[in-house]
Amino acid sequence: MSQENLTVVLHAQGDLRLENRPVPEPGPDEVLLKMHSVGICGSDVHYWQHGRIGDFVLKKPMVLGHEASGRVVKVGSAVEHLNVGDRVAIEPGVPRKVDEYVKNGRYNLSPTIFFCATPPDDGNLSQYYKHSANFCYKLPDNVTYEEGALIEPLSVGIHACRRGGVTLGSTVLICGAGPIGLVSLLVAKAMGASKVVITDLFPERLTMAKELGADFQLTVKKGDGAQQLAKSVEDLLGAQPHITIECTGVESCVQTAIYATRSGGVIVLVGHGSEMVTVPLINAAVREVDIRGVFRYSNTWPMAIAMLASGKVNVKPLVTHRFPLKQAIAAFETTRQGLGIKVMLKCDQNDQDP
Amino acid sequence: MSQENLTVVLHAQGDLRLENRPVPEPGPDEVLLKMHSVGICGSDVHYWQHGRIGDFVLKKPMVLGHEASGRVVKVGSAVEHLNVGDRVAIEPGVPRKVDEYVKNGRYNLSPTIFFCATPPDDGNLSQYYKHSANFCYKLPDNVTYEEGALIEPLSVGIHACRRGGVTLGSTVLICGAGPIGLVSLLVAKAMGASKVVITDLFPERLTMAKELGADFQLTVKKGDGAQQLAKSVEDLLGAQPHITIECTGVESCVQTAIYATRSGGVIVLVGHGSEMVTVPLINAAVREVDIRGVFRYSNTWPMAIAMLASGKVNVKPLVTHRFPLKQAIAAFETTRQGLGIKVMLKCDQNDQDP
Amino acid sequence: MSQENLTVVLHAQGDLRLENRPVPEPGPDEVLLKMHSVGICGSDVHYWQHGRIGDFVLKKPMVLGHEASGRVVKVGSAVEHLNVGDRVAIEPGVPRKVDEYVKNGRYNLSPTIFFCATPPDDGNLSQYYKHSANFCYKLPDNVTYEEGALIEPLSVGIHACRRGGVTLGSTVLICGAGPIGLVSLLVAKAMGASKVVITDLFPERLTMAKELGADFQLTVKKGDGAQQLAKSVEDLLGAQPHITIECTGVESCVQTAIYATRSGGVIVLVGHGSEMVTVPLINAAVREVDIRGVFRYSNTWPMAIAMLASGKVNVKPLVTHRFPLKQAIAAFETTRQGLGIKVMLKCDQNDQDP
Amino acid sequence: MSQENLTVVLHAQGDLRLENRPVPEPGPDEVLLKMHSVGICGSDVHYWQHGRIGDFVLKKPMVLGHEASGRVVKVGSAVEHLNVGDRVAIEPGVPRKVDEYVKNGRYNLSPTIFFCATPPDDGNLSQYYKHSANFCYKLPDNVTYEEGALIEPLSVGIHACRRGGVTLGSTVLICGAGPIGLVSLLVAKAMGASKVVITDLFPERLTMAKELGADFQLTVKKGDGAQQLAKSVEDLLGAQPHITIECTGVESCVQTAIYATRSGGVIVLVGHGSEMVTVPLINAAVREVDIRGVFRYSNTWPMAIAMLASGKVNVKPLVTHRFPLKQAIAAFETTRQGLGIKVMLKCDQNDQDP
Ligand SMILES: NC(=O)c1ccc[n+]([C@@H]2O[C@H](COP(=O)([O-])OP(=O)(O)OC[C@H]3O[C@@H](n4cnc5c(N)ncnc54)[C@H](O)[C@@H]3O)[C@@H](O)[C@H]2O)c1
Ligand SMILES: NC(=O)c1ccc[n+]([C@@H]2O[C@H](COP(=O)([O-])OP(=O)(O)OC[C@H]3O[C@@H](n4cnc5c(N)ncnc54)[C@H](O)[C@@H]3O)[C@@H](O)[C@H]2O)c1
Ligand SMILES: NC(=O)c1ccc[n+]([C@@H]2O[C@H](COP(=O)([O-])OP(=O)(O)OC[C@H]3O[C@@H](n4cnc5c(N)ncnc54)[C@H](O)[C@@H]3O)[C@@H](O)[C@H]2O)c1
Ligand SMILES: NC(=O)c1ccc[n+]([C@@H]2O[C@H](COP(=O)([O-])OP(=O)(O)OC[C@H]3O[C@@H](n4cnc5c(N)ncnc54)[C@H](O)[C@@H]3O)[C@@H](O)[C@H]2O)c1
Ligand SMILES: [Zn+2]
Ligand SMILES: [Zn+2]
Ligand SMILES: [Zn+2]
Ligand SMILES: [Zn+2]
Repeated sequence: MSQENLTVVLHAQGDLRLENRPVPEPGPDEVLLKMHSVGICGSDVHYWQHGRIGDFVLKKPMVLGHEASGRVVKVGSAVEHLNVGDRVAIEPGVPRKVDEYVKNGRYNLSPTIFFCATPPDDGNLSQYYKHSANFCYKLPDNVTYEEGALIEPLSVGIHACRRGGVTLGSTVLICGAGPIGLVSLLVAKAMGASKVVITDLFPERLTMAKELGADFQLTVKKGDGAQQLAKSVEDLLGAQPHITIECTGVESCVQTAIYATRSGGVIVLVGHGSEMVTVPLINAAVREVDIRGVFRYSNTWPMAIAMLASGKVNVKPLVTHRFPLKQAIAAFETTRQGLGIKVMLKCDQNDQDP
Repeated sequence: MSQENLTVVLHAQGDLRLENRPVPEPGPDEVLLKMHSVGICGSDVHYWQHGRIGDFVLKKPMVLGHEASGRVVKVGSAVEHLNVGDRVAIEPGVPRKVDEYVKNGRYNLSPTIFFCATPPDDGNLSQYYKHSANFCYKLPDNVTYEEGALIEPLSVGIHACRRGGVTLGSTVLICGAGPIGLVSLLVAKAMGASKVVITDLFPERLTMAKELGADFQLTVKKGDGAQQLAKSVEDLLGAQPHITIECTGVESCVQTAIYATRSGGVIVLVGHGSEMVTVPLINAAVREVDIRGVFRYSNTWPMAIAMLASGKVNVKPLVTHRFPLKQAIAAFETTRQGLGIKVMLKCDQNDQDP
Repeated sequence: MSQENLTVVLHAQGDLRLENRPVPEPGPDEVLLKMHSVGICGSDVHYWQHGRIGDFVLKKPMVLGHEASGRVVKVGSAVEHLNVGDRVAIEPGVPRKVDEYVKNGRYNLSPTIFFCATPPDDGNLSQYYKHSANFCYKLPDNVTYEEGALIEPLSVGIHACRRGGVTLGSTVLICGAGPIGLVSLLVAKAMGASKVVITDLFPERLTMAKELGADFQLTVKKGDGAQQLAKSVEDLLGAQPHITIECTGVESCVQTAIYATRSGGVIVLVGHGSEMVTVPLINAAVREVDIRGVFRYSNTWPMAIAMLASGKVNVKPLVTHRFPLKQAIAAFETTRQGLGIKVMLKCDQNDQDP
Repeated sequence: MSQENLTVVLHAQGDLRLENRPVPEPGPDEVLLKMHSVGICGSDVHYWQHGRIGDFVLKKPMVLGHEASGRVVKVGSAVEHLNVGDRVAIEPGVPRKVDEYVKNGRYNLSPTIFFCATPPDDGNLSQYYKHSANFCYKLPDNVTYEEGALIEPLSVGIHACRRGGVTLGSTVLICGAGPIGLVSLLVAKAMGASKVVITDLFPERLTMAKELGADFQLTVKKGDGAQQLAKSVEDLLGAQPHITIECTGVESCVQTAIYATRSGGVIVLVGHGSEMVTVPLINAAVREVDIRGVFRYSNTWPMAIAMLASGKVNVKPLVTHRFPLKQAIAAFETTRQGLGIKVMLKCDQNDQDP
């Protein structure tokens, strides 16, 4: 086993370091992974810049990274379904207790869940990382490590579309064309949505959305009225969308979502905004437009792998930048500046392929 | 057929009159009813006092009343399932067009629906009234006319509990112990809720709630903090409620609903408040607490009749006042003053029984 | 208006005639259509050959045809959403009564429903035909008449996949590669199925299935054991399918469906077989494999049109034969012999295009 | 700790023994329980009489019993939510692996689940027994040990009614008035069923059903025609039932269930019968009557405890016989002869109270 284990550690707000850590020893139910590709998420950058997200506050140094894949190099004694050499994607959330949420299949809501790179739990942006074997999923040969790493954001899109009830012939409005809006777009299309409108402030992001299959793009200017935007969406689609997936967290977008969505439809809140928002809730209520939140995901890796293996969803264009792990700070800086869509860190010196 | 047809007509805001109207002639798909009992709803009083509710504005005289039952006295030529003499409860919403909502079973959302006493559609507070036969439901002998009339508000409670997913062992918070909060309580209990907490500003209303089966009553004082109230609810139940049914329309109650409801649970918005509200939406979203509106109801009369006939739901205590139709103005004044719970107008001079 | 109205009438078992009928006059809620394309269905042929299907028995002459599209040439006085010249697809089932099924959105189950070419109701294989305007759906310019006609069988596939819960990453077994198996394949793929196995006795049908997107084809020989076939399906997919859609009606296929489907999965029964079947029901029950029937469809035309217009579903290859209406008997003979997949009758002499 | 641990062990078909076993030592996630009340289930007797149920074959001695409650006397090192002295009900199924079923909340379908008294797993009919702490649920003071033990069969009823979709105003047919039919009856009523018809061969069982709240009882004679019985059910209810819960496993009852259930309704298969059955499946399919199996239960203990604590479900009358553990053989003989409903074994010499 290599002695070295280069790791990206956030010591405090603004203090991001690349340092060497001991290679961990997997417990009986764990596997040790030689990491291959880890995507940088907006939340990683947020912890770096602000030291907190909502109630999650960095109080001691934390390893970043939670969009990851790697290769099994050591297998815990009780593990049966994985072997050394298996290429796996990592589901970063692992429930700690068998509580009511775990028992009823909504383990993402378990209040004591372990989650990579959410304080105080360490992430996996390193050369070696151990993880619960039950939350490592074997990748078929025709799915790359980077696709494996992208299953994490893709899972947010899957969970959002599933909660929204996207199905054959659905029309969908997606607010925001960042990574999360874009994976929601990919998933909505794969679930049978007939038409998707996507909005953003930045034309480049909408260009990417168009390439990924959006039917209509709407460039929003700060200050545009919510009802006005809702009307534009209706005009583009010829009718109000069945489902709106809000991926910005911005108050005015929640307002637009409410005005835009068809009676009897669904709004999915994926974006995280300020604690209190002022919204026309009664407009949604009297038209029975349901409002459903999304907190990460559960039960998405197997279906995501099935979709990637069958070629029905193509996430590859999302990766716009790659950096070797050694250049992690530069990589984070790229994401901080909002350049491109997804920045990948390549953790294996001997294999920097996708 | 009697020449007289005493009718309660709202001519304009504040101008409520009792006047004689021609007895209508039923069309081929309609029945003519000799009205028996009609409850006064908060919305009737609201039109009287304010001349409008939201976008529905009184522009010409309108007959009030939509919580009603009566006896069939004439049957349209195409009607097959009703006969002269049948005692029926009236579902006041009758779709006009066969649109997507009607086809998929959510006809309450049909934008062109006819609805008694919603401008410009006349209600049924009169001696004789004609209605679509398909929306008149025969009452079994052991269900009284008043119970028949109460199916209308009861239906709001059924729809609310159904949308909330109340089932065996659910714990439920109900905000507001007006008629709608109380029917929601009755229905929640009948659907298997194990414990219900109900709140109100007025102790008398909570006393009634207790008599109807509430497990806990919480007297709210204006200015009580939403998070504080949520904590009190949790303390009473020993855990956060699975479902909250908001029946006040008050902003602070929506806030309480969000803070109070268990992760993965549901908030049902029944109450109608101001157009814009300021609420901690993100708190609900990250805990996947769904927010679902209620607009009246659909497909509730048959199950309501089944429950009344089997004695599983007892709505009788809700009727606290009765007035003969001739004293309609006094009856409306009683409701306006918030006295009691439900005021019944008795339209049949020869039968003023419940 | 043309005087002539050439019509395909089944007078009695085996007695199929092409005859002239009066052009009908549309009622207030109806439209008169100049028919364009009508597909021949297995049920049309079955009535011709056997004079009955189950309890539906031909007792008097009946017009055949229910997979149809045409152009509006006359509009009833109460119709608002259609105009002369509109190209429309026809939903052949029109509820007659506003019963519990119509009210709750499952109108296909309404026992008194009108249905084209189901005794005693006439179908639409003719030059002129009148139909309830509410069940005629306008076709966008980029959807052909033949695609419009194919919405009828496609709807069976939509309803089957919807009842089966096909979604992103589902693995699906389809028994039978006739028209219904093939449309189920198209829809399953469009709803996000990752892998579909399809079976048939005839390799030509499986070749078509492969062209339409099936991932695996399994040629069945009469006498193959059900458990053996289930094992083959599992081997092909690498795991048992989540969902099985049975489109043959054959007893041994129902058995295969039960043995094949994954625990917690769903079997959809689309095929119609003999009244009594001998099946390992307990095998399904103890693994909570649900068994759900399909009776036609409801609420499918709008989503089908959305999918065709967006190009997400391609039904065009299903049409393997075309005949002018005058050659209807030859067309029926082609279907009877099981040649090709879908035979289209072209009812408009001046426009025989797809 | 007592040295003695009297235990009911089935050594082979027909060879049931009461013997002393060592008191087990709880692992870190387990608790040791001093057992109080254990009900005898039909399956216990079946293993005794036949040595197998379906594919589950007794190959080595097995402790019987799975309907149980007791008191915590020792707590594993990792257990947080239980303390010595806690009175608990035991959920006998404990998943061994974190597979797809466990992750999605249907852990009862996990193929490797541990289940008390299902070969080769030992049950809990003994004085001391250790169990996974996560599957022991604390009983409130007002719920007796026997009620706690009855949560196991009650859970089958909960799961059956939940899968059947019983709700307010449902009409329900239950086939079979054994313990499982009776708990289904109790739960159906608590979930809001308006009317329940129950059938059995034996009038005594129907008398008990009547006492527990059945609205109609139907005594079946062997040889009664299935369609005839379905007609009798319809006559009693005035319409076909929405839901049928089959609790006999008998072929003719499955047939009756199909003929009896309303179009669009649900049949729940709880009873276990022969491997192959001959049934009119097409009758269910064309009326979209869904057929759903039940394999034990998942996520039922918390709601069951809530219902018992709130007094909404009264299971106490089900216990018709009690024996001290020492007389276990006599107790089993009582159940074998079909006497009464539920026989309770009292494992704690010092406390034989309910
Ligand atoms: N619910 C969850 O589990 C979950 C998981 C991941 C991310 N998130 C949240 O989802 C959101 C999106 O994540 P991301 O990584 O794509 O972030 P991002 O910042 O890259 O993308 C947000 C996009 O929204 C656009 N935008 C901003 N204001 C807008 C407006 N008024 N109208 C239209 N577009 C506007 C921005 O230009 C940007 O492209 C974030 O709030 C993030 O915190 C939630
Ligand atoms: N969604 C629908 O289809 C529908 C149908 C009928 C009624 N409604 C609405 O439901 C609401 C209730 O109707 P109702 O007839 O029972 O009205 P109501 O005014 O009689 O009852 C409301 C109750 O809420 C109480 N309340 C007010 N502020 C409160 C607070 N801060 N905390 C706790 N309780 C408080 C009041 O004291 C009152 O008892 C109204 O807003 C009405 O418009 C909606
Ligand atoms: N439920 C509904 O509403 C509905 C609607 C339309 C059709 N249907 C039924 O669906 C079924 C299929 O319709 P279709 O038009 O495709 O009929 P079809 O006869 O053209 O196709 C059936 C296919 O099944 C194949 N088959 C026969 N035995 C088989 C076996 N043992 N294994 C595998 N394949 C086998 C046949 O070779 C044939 O290709 C028919 O039973 C029809 O009555 C039902
Ligand atoms: N699915 C599950 O998870 C599960 C769990 C427990 C029990 N079970 C099964 O449920 C069934 C019922 O269990 P139980 O403990 O109540 O058994 P039981 O034998 O005590 O009760 C069955 C009842 O059905 C009656 N019966 C027999 N033939 C009948 C007929 N033709 N019509 C009407 N009634 C008839 C019997 O008289 C008896 O009262 C059994 O088959 C059992 O194996 C299934
Ligand atoms: Zn992320
Ligand atoms: Zn009202
Ligand atoms: Zn057809
Ligand atoms: Zn049992």
